[in-house]
Amino acid sequence: MSLTAEKIIQEFKLIQDEICRDLESLDGQGKFIEDLWDRSEGGGGRTRILEGHIIEKGGVNFSHVYGNVSDEMAAAMNMVGERWLASGVSIVLHPSSPRVPIIHMNIRYFELDGGREWWFGGGIDLTPHYVDPGLAKDFHIKLKEVCDNFSSTAYAEYKKWADDYFYLPHRKESRGVGGIFFDRLNGDSGHSKEEIFDFVTAVGRIFAQLYQYQVDQTKELAFGDGEKEWQMIRRGRYVEFNLVWDRGTKFGLISDGRTESILMSLPKNASWQYQYQPGPKETESQKWLQKGIEWI
Amino acid sequence: MSLTAEKIIQEFKLIQDEICRDLESLDGQGKFIEDLWDRSEGGGGRTRILEGHIIEKGGVNFSHVYGNVSDEMAAAMNMVGERWLASGVSIVLHPSSPRVPIIHMNIRYFELDGGREWWFGGGIDLTPHYVDPGLAKDFHIKLKEVCDNFSSTAYAEYKKWADDYFYLPHRKESRGVGGIFFDRLNGDSGHSKEEIFDFVTAVGRIFAQLYQYQVDQTKELAFGDGEKEWQMIRRGRYVEFNLVWDRGTKFGLISDGRTESILMSLPKNASWQYQYQPGPKETESQKWLQKGIEWI
Repeated sequence: MSLTAEKIIQEFKLIQDEICRDLESLDGQGKFIEDLWDRSEGGGGRTRILEGHIIEKGGVNFSHVYGNVSDEMAAAMNMVGERWLASGVSIVLHPSSPRVPIIHMNIRYFELDGGREWWFGGGIDLTPHYVDPGLAKDFHIKLKEVCDNFSSTAYAEYKKWADDYFYLPHRKESRGVGGIFFDRLNGDSGHSKEEIFDFVTAVGRIFAQLYQYQVDQTKELAFGDGEKEWQMIRRGRYVEFNLVWDRGTKFGLISDGRTESILMSLPKNASWQYQYQPGPKETESQKWLQKGIEWI
Repeated sequence: MSLTAEKIIQEFKLIQDEICRDLESLDGQGKFIEDLWDRSEGGGGRTRILEGHIIEKGGVNFSHVYGNVSDEMAAAMNMVGERWLASGVSIVLHPSSPRVPIIHMNIRYFELDGGREWWFGGGIDLTPHYVDPGLAKDFHIKLKEVCDNFSSTAYAEYKKWADDYFYLPHRKESRGVGGIFFDRLNGDSGHSKEEIFDFVTAVGRIFAQLYQYQVDQTKELAFGDGEKEWQMIRRGRYVEFNLVWDRGTKFGLISDGRTESILMSLPKNASWQYQYQPGPKETESQKWLQKGIEWI
């Protein structure tokens, strides 16, 4: 039996369920609230938001949407077809403590004309307010394991892709310590649809344990007003990345997507100061925010 | 003697000086700090920032920059030429009190090949956290007077342009109560370069008194935590407009402009809450955030 959109969508929903369960356990206090929504042109989604103890504001979105290919869409996405379908799981978690990193994960599937053309995309990246190179290394080692199970070249390729993607040119700095990013993975990759699907779901399924580990290593670390101020500045940069550079956010907003679901990625609050002068610890941390660092 | 770029630039600097003097007087406590900057490709600017009593965070920027027309620039701006020059004054003020409105003003001049082609642009718009239709009317009456001195059709035209420009499609709401906006005003408008320049400088010179009036009418109004919370939400929308939709911000960031000067428009802090439920006063205020309201 071939791998249908229905099967993929069902699995994405399961992954959303599993992650929400794991994150409630991780947080210890917060519970997800769910909004089910329909899209007038076709499809809908399940937006789940948690405001808890460890996670100040987090969203775990599932969506499954479809429609007719417009001329604008065909041009913007460089594709030919009549009917499109997209489904995915998308997550951003902003922790309360400035010592705990922000994290993002996304997995997605896209098909044209009932599967005549199809591709997968996805990524995970970690944004510590204070970079601990050891924890960044641990994070990358686990991602490399998942990639190595798929292909021996995947980690190097997708790690570089993340370095290039999660980058703020106007600040000349990376969003965080990177991770992996990939897009338009299809049969041309030399892998079957089933193999790519297995890889993408493995990325989805490692997310909760990756974050649990980062949280366990950082949640007891002390912080004061200085660290909170720095967190607000780093959140400002996160907002800048998402609103200025992130293709998913942009595409969602200009294509009349569900704004509240798209912008769940923004933190509860953020701050901007003209010519902010970071202290020694913050300057040290900022030095790690660049492309091309081999963490492993 | 014809109106040269030098004369325009000199006048823009004078307007920046006058406005900074008037805003220090308005604030009563804060003093502008100035950063002079050079641009490696040509030109530079004077960025002035005030953190005061009434104005929590405000910037009054002057810049005068020039260079060779790149292919990207020619395509993006739909123009033909070899050398470009741009100069302008740009202001955003975020007040401490949620009862005092945010305000923005910009005037700008652009020329190609030493003045073979030229145009002016500009605008003023007001963003109250709480809309008072009477104060919005006062604001528009003054703008209409300035426009009427230039042309009998200018106010209607530039008011509509502002309605269309200062709009957040993804929120289906206006940034505030509008104002005026105009771009690419040149000889085709039926006005001489001198006449347009007189109009543009009149816009610049009415700014401080317009804001002084708004501040005088609102600065003594009481507020509490609820109003501060709403202010943070409205500031979040301001950030969304500037980073997602504002053409000047975008052009600056993608063309490697001076980030700290461009992003002086962002507030000291802002907030995002999923599915924020405004109270009765806030809902009432939000009803005014739409296009096509004739305030006068």
